[in-house]
Amino acid sequence: MKGIFIVLEGPDGSGKSTVIKHIRKYLEDRGIDVVETREPGGTAIGESIRRILLDNRNKTMLPETEALLLAAARGQHVKEKILPAIESGKVVLCDRFVLSSLAYQGVGRDLGIEEVRIINDFAIKGIRPDLTLFFDVEPETTLHRKTQDKGGDRLETEGIEFHRKVYDGYLKIIRDCTERIVVIDATRTKKEVISQSIESIENFIKGRLL
Amino acid sequence: MKGIFIVLEGPDGSGKSTVIKHIRKYLEDRGIDVVETREPGGTAIGESIRRILLDNRNKTMLPETEALLLAAARGQHVKEKILPAIESGKVVLCDRFVLSSLAYQGVGRDLGIEEVRIINDFAIKGIRPDLTLFFDVEPETTLHRKTQDKGGDRLETEGIEFHRKVYDGYLKIIRDCTERIVVIDATRTKKEVISQSIESIENFIKGRLL
Repeated sequence: MKGIFIVLEGPDGSGKSTVIKHIRKYLEDRGIDVVETREPGGTAIGESIRRILLDNRNKTMLPETEALLLAAARGQHVKEKILPAIESGKVVLCDRFVLSSLAYQGVGRDLGIEEVRIINDFAIKGIRPDLTLFFDVEPETTLHRKTQDKGGDRLETEGIEFHRKVYDGYLKIIRDCTERIVVIDATRTKKEVISQSIESIENFIKGRLL
Repeated sequence: MKGIFIVLEGPDGSGKSTVIKHIRKYLEDRGIDVVETREPGGTAIGESIRRILLDNRNKTMLPETEALLLAAARGQHVKEKILPAIESGKVVLCDRFVLSSLAYQGVGRDLGIEEVRIINDFAIKGIRPDLTLFFDVEPETTLHRKTQDKGGDRLETEGIEFHRKVYDGYLKIIRDCTERIVVIDATRTKKEVISQSIESIENFIKGRLL
């Protein structure tokens, strides 16, 4: 049986990386093989690219370079890790995918959604998630959460105007999108967010079995 | 006065990097400001990308990843180094540019010339060399030269079939190309190759002054 490719999307600090651990545990407790991964990264080459992308010294990086590096890492990720896992029947839980590039580089960096989609299609040859969970929380809230942490990488330390554009971009892309995307209210308690996420995945799996 | 953007192209081991030094010296002796640079690389971000590209451990790198990384480094190179030099009236001598990607990734790696051109247009927004010197020598000859050296990086250590495809790709692209490309017979003596290269550049400069 073919596996399932699930992507978690949302602004920085929307709680994706915490929730993903709980989803994983929930699925594994039910005997399901899970591969948890993240972007950019997920492979040796992808992690090398990630270091360039997040390095705070790389202040002169162009938006185009950023989009191309992300697509390069993504192509490698799909081929080496995501596709083999899906083909062997596993559930892949991936923290960010193409939608992030459309929102961050396409809208946030003004490169254009279609332009960034073309670059990504070149890299990944049309693979799409089976299900995307979008963690919906306004950037004003997530940035407050982030400042409670220490520091932040090259992308996280962008100003509020950038993160507002990215958030509005997400909403626009999701509205126009034909993929299966569930919007999770990420302003609710951690427990509620986790349970809504798991419920969405269960519904998707049940729907596929019918 | 606007500067000149000159690119040296050709198979691995065709002698570009030796000749470029002589061209530079010739021009500098005549009081011309020269910026000598190379691809992939030429900037801090570009050199980080170059390390990933040439690392012999990265055996699983996809052709698409390779093309995207090269374009990412190229965009950075154009914006940070090539354009500022041209705008300040200098002569830029660049070892490899878009034509290399079209031949190596577009033809050698079977990604398609047009597909690779789109990725590069995204990265560099239509900047073209004023003059390209193509160092014409068949791969059977250059590979013999290379084996006299030690080792070779991830791209150089590809087999003869790959380098033959790249060479044939170069000839096809040059035939169909509307840019100014001078073909230099790189099988001749080093002295002759240098003098033919310098002559081509002098002719181009004279033509522009008329």
